[in-house]
Amino acid sequence: MAEPPLRGINDVIHAKARLGIMSLVMSHSYCDFTMLKQKLDLTDGNLGSHILKLEQAGYILVEKTFVNRKPKTIITVTKSGAKAYADYIEALEMLIQAHIAPQKKGKD
Amino acid sequence: MAEPPLRGINDVIHAKARLGIMSLVMSHSYCDFTMLKQKLDLTDGNLGSHILKLEQAGYILVEKTFVNRKPKTIITVTKSGAKAYADYIEALEMLIQAHIAPQKKGKD
Repeated sequence: MAEPPLRGINDVIHAKARLGIMSLVMSHSYCDFTMLKQKLDLTDGNLGSHILKLEQAGYILVEKTFVNRKPKTIITVTKSGAKAYADYIEALEMLIQAHIAPQKKGKD
Repeated sequence: MAEPPLRGINDVIHAKARLGIMSLVMSHSYCDFTMLKQKLDLTDGNLGSHILKLEQAGYILVEKTFVNRKPKTIITVTKSGAKAYADYIEALEMLIQAHIAPQKKGKD
């Protein structure tokens, strides 16, 4: 799928759940697992597998820590992840620019 | 997944292949099957199933016709599809607005 209008739309980020994770880690200094789970309304297993995919791509860092003796999983974005997200957003902007007066279009 | 930042991102349109189809039918007066297949680099079966999903959602019209005695499948957007695409693009715009200075973020 190298042709416009989809050029630059990164499959690792585009999946809705992963887009949600990336968007949240980009707009907060860090996210924890529970917060992501609640905000994105995902199950543990589902969120875990999307986090793993982003971690394997080198886009996020996953650190286990303890807060008040309770285990906490902290997720932060990497430089490579921030760059990939910025490129993805740029691709979306190009898609939006290509979108001509949709309100006037369409047959009944 | 009703929480920001994903609110308004329509799953029927968000899948990359269907986003490609919608974007192309929005920017052309019509598309034919062969043109979509080439532009999006999809197999017949894969493109057919994505077209069916958009047709079932009421977003596109699929018409079989003959051009120079050869069968042709013509795809156009419906009013409902144009509205759904416009809403989707608006949701993307909100996602982009929420995206704060990504280039400056990220750990090595």
